[in-house]
Amino acid sequence: MKAKQTAITPTREENYPEWYQEVIKAADLAENSLVRGCMVIKPWGYAIWEKMVADLDRRFKKEGVENAYFPLFIPLELLQKEAKHVEGFATECAVVTHHRLEKNAEGKLVPAGPLEEPLIVRPTSEMIIGESFAKWIVSYRDLPMKINQWANVVRWEMRPRIFLRTAEFLWQEGHTAHESAEEGLEMAKTMLAVYRDFGKEMLAIPFYAGEKSEGERFPGAHTTFTVEGIMQDGKALQAGTSHFMHQNFAKASHIQFNNRSGQLEHAYTTSWGVTTRLIGAMIMTHSDDNGLVIPPKVAPKQVVIIPFLMKEQEEVIAYSKALAEELEAKGVRVHLDLSDKRSGEKVWHWIKKGVPARIEVGAKEIAEGSLALSMRHEEKGCVKKISREELVETLPSLLDQMQEELYQKALDLRNKRTKTAHTIEEFAALAKEETFPLSVIKAPWKGSLQDEERVKKEFNLSIRCILNEKGGLCPFSNQGDAPYALFAKSY
Amino acid sequence: MKAKQTAITPTREENYPEWYQEVIKAADLAENSLVRGCMVIKPWGYAIWEKMVADLDRRFKKEGVENAYFPLFIPLELLQKEAKHVEGFATECAVVTHHRLEKNAEGKLVPAGPLEEPLIVRPTSEMIIGESFAKWIVSYRDLPMKINQWANVVRWEMRPRIFLRTAEFLWQEGHTAHESAEEGLEMAKTMLAVYRDFGKEMLAIPFYAGEKSEGERFPGAHTTFTVEGIMQDGKALQAGTSHFMHQNFAKASHIQFNNRSGQLEHAYTTSWGVTTRLIGAMIMTHSDDNGLVIPPKVAPKQVVIIPFLMKEQEEVIAYSKALAEELEAKGVRVHLDLSDKRSGEKVWHWIKKGVPARIEVGAKEIAEGSLALSMRHEEKGCVKKISREELVETLPSLLDQMQEELYQKALDLRNKRTKTAHTIEEFAALAKEETFPLSVIKAPWKGSLQDEERVKKEFNLSIRCILNEKGGLCPFSNQGDAPYALFAKSY
Repeated sequence: MKAKQTAITPTREENYPEWYQEVIKAADLAENSLVRGCMVIKPWGYAIWEKMVADLDRRFKKEGVENAYFPLFIPLELLQKEAKHVEGFATECAVVTHHRLEKNAEGKLVPAGPLEEPLIVRPTSEMIIGESFAKWIVSYRDLPMKINQWANVVRWEMRPRIFLRTAEFLWQEGHTAHESAEEGLEMAKTMLAVYRDFGKEMLAIPFYAGEKSEGERFPGAHTTFTVEGIMQDGKALQAGTSHFMHQNFAKASHIQFNNRSGQLEHAYTTSWGVTTRLIGAMIMTHSDDNGLVIPPKVAPKQVVIIPFLMKEQEEVIAYSKALAEELEAKGVRVHLDLSDKRSGEKVWHWIKKGVPARIEVGAKEIAEGSLALSMRHEEKGCVKKISREELVETLPSLLDQMQEELYQKALDLRNKRTKTAHTIEEFAALAKEETFPLSVIKAPWKGSLQDEERVKKEFNLSIRCILNEKGGLCPFSNQGDAPYALFAKSY
Repeated sequence: MKAKQTAITPTREENYPEWYQEVIKAADLAENSLVRGCMVIKPWGYAIWEKMVADLDRRFKKEGVENAYFPLFIPLELLQKEAKHVEGFATECAVVTHHRLEKNAEGKLVPAGPLEEPLIVRPTSEMIIGESFAKWIVSYRDLPMKINQWANVVRWEMRPRIFLRTAEFLWQEGHTAHESAEEGLEMAKTMLAVYRDFGKEMLAIPFYAGEKSEGERFPGAHTTFTVEGIMQDGKALQAGTSHFMHQNFAKASHIQFNNRSGQLEHAYTTSWGVTTRLIGAMIMTHSDDNGLVIPPKVAPKQVVIIPFLMKEQEEVIAYSKALAEELEAKGVRVHLDLSDKRSGEKVWHWIKKGVPARIEVGAKEIAEGSLALSMRHEEKGCVKKISREELVETLPSLLDQMQEELYQKALDLRNKRTKTAHTIEEFAALAKEETFPLSVIKAPWKGSLQDEERVKKEFNLSIRCILNEKGGLCPFSNQGDAPYALFAKSY
């Protein structure tokens, strides 16, 4: 039996985590840096991020959110005040203790200028934005205040994985303050919907959107909403969260306003964020054993034209250039590959990089008036012969169709591997399966924190989110009228 | 005698540095943060920066530059290797020595997890990008390589001033590698032109563009080009630099390539950057004693509509909304101020914030079919009555005209205060003037590093740039055929 040749070794089934690293490498998206846990995002990866940022930013602004920028450093003293957050994620962080370098007796550079008070490199800007809100907000007239920041943050990571978990990553954090609990909760839900719609429309990822359980809730939050992607291995990836803090955060940060009755009241706040992890979600949702697959909407280049150059080189190049221009005029992002690689190499190069469409142009194709078009998400070798006219006419809609097909395919897979359990026995049977992909278990949930701990311990699964969908009797707590929750292994 | 009323106290003439701070405050652009030397860029200031970034980014991409992202941290060891740079600016930097916080016996958070090797928060990513280039570049086929990064950097500052000099600031740094010295030099010149054109077309700033003298050259650079803005006080502000490093940087970073003859050769590199300082340049070029003036091209909102609300409130609001939509359809960025401030307050609010155009709408205006239009750069009180139809028709071109007028005004002032000296006596006479604004001295220059030191010491002036313009006999070195250089006090 002849093994099927694939560009990526190992395949997804053979070793999913390693496949993931190899896809990143083959697509030249990013690499590890000299500094442990930090990544270098290379041009192809960064261009995808730019597309995501531009679209998200537009969506945020539509919700009345304004961008601002807050300092990289946080005085240790400020963290000190917010013990609650410190108990959470903020302890693994980079600490700045000096502000100068000096040469010692041996001419070696050593830290000098010790700071009176150490500074923390922001693991989040929450606290420093809270300080600003406390200053900026005086009256209900200042509300709602809706601020977002695009920035880098640092959380020391012992087991880094590119895009999924790195010491430094890029993200946006939105923070809003409102004059009522209802308005605050509504805002948190709105931003959840923004993430879900963005996922669907741009990344072609069918996120599950729902609420976090008590055990998974953000420290200090009243309600945490989440979008969860189900990767091709059946594990869940938390891709974005939106928190309604009620007055908890405002109390810690002293954000008060004179309300309409003239009384001083703590504001109702939200916070919400997504990170470069979205790139990881995109990779793990769509890519295959030949490498990256990029949904057209976030593809830096949507089509690559590969001129097959042998004889009649000039004619082929001229033809390709004209075609590129024609497609660009249609609003398609085109790359014309005139590098001096061999044609076969070029083809594989762009397959691995995940460009949605590939057009091959040679003397023969020009003579026949028929070009070779391949869509990245279709079976390898599935080449369509198409006239230039038709190509130019239909490519934009073919790209839209690909976007839709990627979404449908991911949705089908997600639904297929989401399995319902109504009893502990059914749950246990699904939990112990060792299939590829793993199952995501959907079961009614109205359990306590203790029940949640039990699920974690006994089945090694966490609650990814509670859906807005009636489930029935919760098999863990025997309470009725429970909504469905999703249980899965996670990244 | 009645003093003229201005919104900003002090005026430019009274105290320029303080006026600058007050303009920033009145326009709500930015403020100092808890962390010494770091600023919070507020939404209005950040929105201006976003406009600048978008336009610069477009220009860079047109030159074939791709964006990427490199780690925030640099291992101390890497700096160690590049002694030359360390002698320069890199010694005042934030040093990370720990990666965790722990509670001590008294429950106080203290740095823990000491790092084996301290990390530096990037004062520039030059060295770490150099490391990547050394890895990525193998053959002439990999050249030219043109990479840019938008990021935050940190340089400890003892005397911070918002936008001009802050411990943390935002910037872009471009780094390119080429296979010949000619191509590298050409690239450095191209990017200088990009900055100059951007300054002219977007910021309405007539930058002087030229070469830095030996004493002002970037450490390790073969040639440093600069754009220098002349502020309203006659001081020069270095607003952007473009360096041609020849092979110096490639040698330090081991960036080598197999050239077309099959030999290993060091690449020819450039680097170029601009920072949030551009916002400072914009403020100090155009603003007046009533506050900020923003050139329309970078204004987050180009026109504000202020409904004068007394009776017939609903009609006025409906009218204003319709007008706003009509203008937006014309591509104008509109803000409709429906806040509950008094109309007079609103007017001053937007004058101080520098919105290019202001439209006042009241019941009277609607009845008369004639709106009140004020352009921010014209004499305060210069209100033009204009029909709605004409307003909608002409506002886009009025904004273009304002952009042009701001440029012309700045150019005239710059030229007026640039004074030529051909002898030491003429030079000395200009140098000792204590006028407002100060003079910029243009004199032939072919001096040595010693001559440059002398000018600095004796006249307290630095060479801002050497122009590509014949000057004659250099009065400092008595060498003939010298180009003109500009001498000024600087920020």
